[in-house]
Amino acid sequence: LLANAKSVEIVLVSPRNPLNIGAVARAMANFGFEHLTVVAPYEPHWQEARSAVGAESLLHNARRTESLAEAVAGCTLVAGTGTLTYRKAEQRVVSLPALVPILQPELELGRVALVFGPEKHGLTREDLSWCHLLLEIPTDPRQPSMNLGQAVAVCLYELASRSLPAQLDHPGEINLKGSNGADQKGKRAPSANLDLLACVIEETMSAAEYSPRAMQPANRHDLRLLLRRLAPSEHDTRRILGLFRRILWRLQRSKQGE
Amino acid sequence: LLANAKSVEIVLVSPRNPLNIGAVARAMANFGFEHLTVVAPYEPHWQEARSAVGAESLLHNARRTESLAEAVAGCTLVAGTGTLTYRKAEQRVVSLPALVPILQPELELGRVALVFGPEKHGLTREDLSWCHLLLEIPTDPRQPSMNLGQAVAVCLYELASRSLPAQLDHPGEINLKGSNGADQKGKRAPSANLDLLACVIEETMSAAEYSPRAMQPANRHDLRLLLRRLAPSEHDTRRILGLFRRILWRLQRSKQGE
Repeated sequence: LLANAKSVEIVLVSPRNPLNIGAVARAMANFGFEHLTVVAPYEPHWQEARSAVGAESLLHNARRTESLAEAVAGCTLVAGTGTLTYRKAEQRVVSLPALVPILQPELELGRVALVFGPEKHGLTREDLSWCHLLLEIPTDPRQPSMNLGQAVAVCLYELASRSLPAQLDHPGEINLKGSNGADQKGKRAPSANLDLLACVIEETMSAAEYSPRAMQPANRHDLRLLLRRLAPSEHDTRRILGLFRRILWRLQRSKQGE
Repeated sequence: LLANAKSVEIVLVSPRNPLNIGAVARAMANFGFEHLTVVAPYEPHWQEARSAVGAESLLHNARRTESLAEAVAGCTLVAGTGTLTYRKAEQRVVSLPALVPILQPELELGRVALVFGPEKHGLTREDLSWCHLLLEIPTDPRQPSMNLGQAVAVCLYELASRSLPAQLDHPGEINLKGSNGADQKGKRAPSANLDLLACVIEETMSAAEYSPRAMQPANRHDLRLLLRRLAPSEHDTRRILGLFRRILWRLQRSKQGE
């Protein structure tokens, strides 16, 4: 089983079927994972699911949040699951059998989220903009869409059975950009810090009248993705934030002076 | 996906829950497997399961047999799934991450069955006596027992994603005893041939008054396991069968002469 399983957060976005929530909890218990977060669940089904056999304590300790941003706020690497059959990826795509070498160094430094979408349509483009990578389970193109409980089971089996002893070297080429090994200064910023930075940058863009108001949602989406691509360290995130706060202050001050 | 997926038979012994049967069919479709056999299903649930979404043709083409012996009759390697938590294995135990190198050479020559037991208690000791090996999914000892649909998904993901190109050499040390590579003469005997041989040997034991009548069920069980351990080739199975038929004829003839 995975030594750092405590550093993994399983996130379900708006699951509908209580049986699936129960199945997810059961798979987590089977493979030694503990931390479940459910985003905006359908209330009656969520209550029903919490009575699932064999995973009672896990479901009772599950976190519940209103947004995905909140669910992954403390995570330094967020992997959204999905298939490319119906979409074009806006972030790096990783096939499940290649995931462990990427996740493992991250688990020693930070906190990883695996995010699963609702049963019907999976994660939206908006949901995925909080993700550093899109995790794809290799399936038959004639039937690519997996059942939620089975998809989680397969991902957790892969993590639990393919992880290496913790002290191995991390091959640099498979690290995500921005992660530089065990150096604490290089620790990737958690998702909430990137959201805070994005907020200040957006305010700055607005103050600078960077683009028309109608473009704001698209800009916000692109900015979110950009920050995940850059994957700045906590240290660098603070520096960039300081810079933008200064710029914003200047812009607002010059406006008052007009 | 697995090149020889057509040579894999998924066998469910007495599944109870129609949702699970549907989930198994869906996982098979996801990972490109086609051949499903259901042994002695509970009739109403079996009919209900056949209407599962997304796997209609697979479920309609599913075979249905009354016994496990019949279900695996044409298979040259039978892997039963289960956990060692509640039992002592009577056959070789293989952990799922180690399965592909064992299965792959077999798939080029013969036919492989993966056998899954009923939801409540799994495969019985009797069921497992038709198996060459016991396949174990590595799980947390605190919650070892997996949901049927999830167990199948995890096994098929492993087979589909870890299989190597077909033309690779087969490392000898991981072959089961009795299999000697691509030599047609060394092709392992299908399960039905072993059952036939076991029948004639048992008759011979009885004619020879080998042991008291009360021992017959235990002897039958041990004999079945012994033949799977020996894993004789088709050619050798025929030779041994010929030998026992001759001995039996002699015994019966000498009895008539008494």
